[in-house]
Amino acid sequence: MGAKNFTASELLEMSPKEFRSIARQGQAIHTSRVCRGYAQANLAIVPRDVAFEFLVFCNRNPRACPVIDVTEPGNPHPPRVAPEADLRTDLGKYRVYKDGKLVDEPSDIRDYWRDDLVGFLLGCSYSFDWLMRAANVKFRFIGAFPTNIPCVPAGPFSGHVVVSCRFFKDSEEAVRAIQISSRVPAVHGAPIHIGDPLLIGIKDLYSYRTDFLTEPPAPQEPDEIALYWGCGLTAQVVAVESKLPLMITHYPGTMFVTDKRVEELAIL
Amino acid sequence: MGAKNFTASELLEMSPKEFRSIARQGQAIHTSRVCRGYAQANLAIVPRDVAFEFLVFCNRNPRACPVIDVTEPGNPHPPRVAPEADLRTDLGKYRVYKDGKLVDEPSDIRDYWRDDLVGFLLGCSYSFDWLMRAANVKFRFIGAFPTNIPCVPAGPFSGHVVVSCRFFKDSEEAVRAIQISSRVPAVHGAPIHIGDPLLIGIKDLYSYRTDFLTEPPAPQEPDEIALYWGCGLTAQVVAVESKLPLMITHYPGTMFVTDKRVEELAIL
Repeated sequence: MGAKNFTASELLEMSPKEFRSIARQGQAIHTSRVCRGYAQANLAIVPRDVAFEFLVFCNRNPRACPVIDVTEPGNPHPPRVAPEADLRTDLGKYRVYKDGKLVDEPSDIRDYWRDDLVGFLLGCSYSFDWLMRAANVKFRFIGAFPTNIPCVPAGPFSGHVVVSCRFFKDSEEAVRAIQISSRVPAVHGAPIHIGDPLLIGIKDLYSYRTDFLTEPPAPQEPDEIALYWGCGLTAQVVAVESKLPLMITHYPGTMFVTDKRVEELAIL
Repeated sequence: MGAKNFTASELLEMSPKEFRSIARQGQAIHTSRVCRGYAQANLAIVPRDVAFEFLVFCNRNPRACPVIDVTEPGNPHPPRVAPEADLRTDLGKYRVYKDGKLVDEPSDIRDYWRDDLVGFLLGCSYSFDWLMRAANVKFRFIGAFPTNIPCVPAGPFSGHVVVSCRFFKDSEEAVRAIQISSRVPAVHGAPIHIGDPLLIGIKDLYSYRTDFLTEPPAPQEPDEIALYWGCGLTAQVVAVESKLPLMITHYPGTMFVTDKRVEELAIL
């Protein structure tokens, strides 16, 4: 099927089912502004023989890797958050890591699928951005960055936390952002750092990082407050740092869009 | 070592480490009023070959089975919440389920321990009772009851949710109890039912239930509001209903006392 262009407004009002059908046709659309109000997820697929250890890893690192769904081995349908979806095709773009190396960035993973693969969906902070916009909390999304914060290891899984960074102009709105995100631990919950990026090993917030798909941001202004949340890209850093034989993930920024409204995942 | 009696006040002010050393000596003390402010946990031990499916089960049923720690296979020390403790000895009393039948209630499980066993600690609502008392929210603990609410199954694990029931005299305090418990999803989070026990399949709140250790409570008064929380005894019902080859648990009411203050587990 041919590609089609959609207006920003069409993407914003689109249903998750319709958006996934577009991704299935091979269009890799950045998801930060699609399907307003719906929760989005990071994808991490590992073989069954390390699936227990990976789930323990996620359990030990819930701010970076909050699990919102787990598939049956070999079954590509996420039973809790989008049972009709197919994780092999319904994301715009994927990444395949072998022995800790990025070896492919395909638009579907049907050729890689095996009967022993287990899919994990990890909440994405784009989800709570809808709650912030609904509360008129204004922010600039700066990007996702590797840090020097160690993960708690489990089995073969170890590495360092990736964070997403947002700038807030207004102290009251920054506090509100902390409150709002605290309500949804399923999509990372509260921030894990405030302020100086150097304190968590980020040397430069403003260099263009192709690996995490962020545009070079305008420099921080003196009155801007930086908040940092755990990011599901941590799983990809772990795949590299742990030299895992195989992990398949989403391509940064092209998340899986679930059928759940982010408010359905909020705990209060 | 000989048994020793402790006053209510001594038990209340005791450290988790000291309390566990008493349990290690074989004393089965009900834990609802010990080690003020510390989080307590249900224990569920299963063999490694079903550990992944059990963790997925817990992930799919977080209100009943919120996981706060997972041990390495064969290692009895819970790394996150009490690394010095030994799950084989540090609870007052245990239960051993084989093929869905309760076969033993020993005071330690050293004779049952194997290199392939994995221990799971699931948050217990006794933990948030400390937060309620600190907030001067008054309640009567009525007991734990099996319901007709089905769990979301995973692998061989299926069954029905067990709830704990508390009565509140004051609407404002009942609302406060919902707010307080919502802050700690690690120990069940918010209630899953309000009001009529029959609606969730509980025929009688007032009959004495030896299996879940509750005393026969005084009947509900007209102004009392009943709130029901998910309960970690769900794992024991699942062991029975699923006829699991082996699950080892705590004995109801004699929980594992962790080194974490419940406030450390709160998400906001």
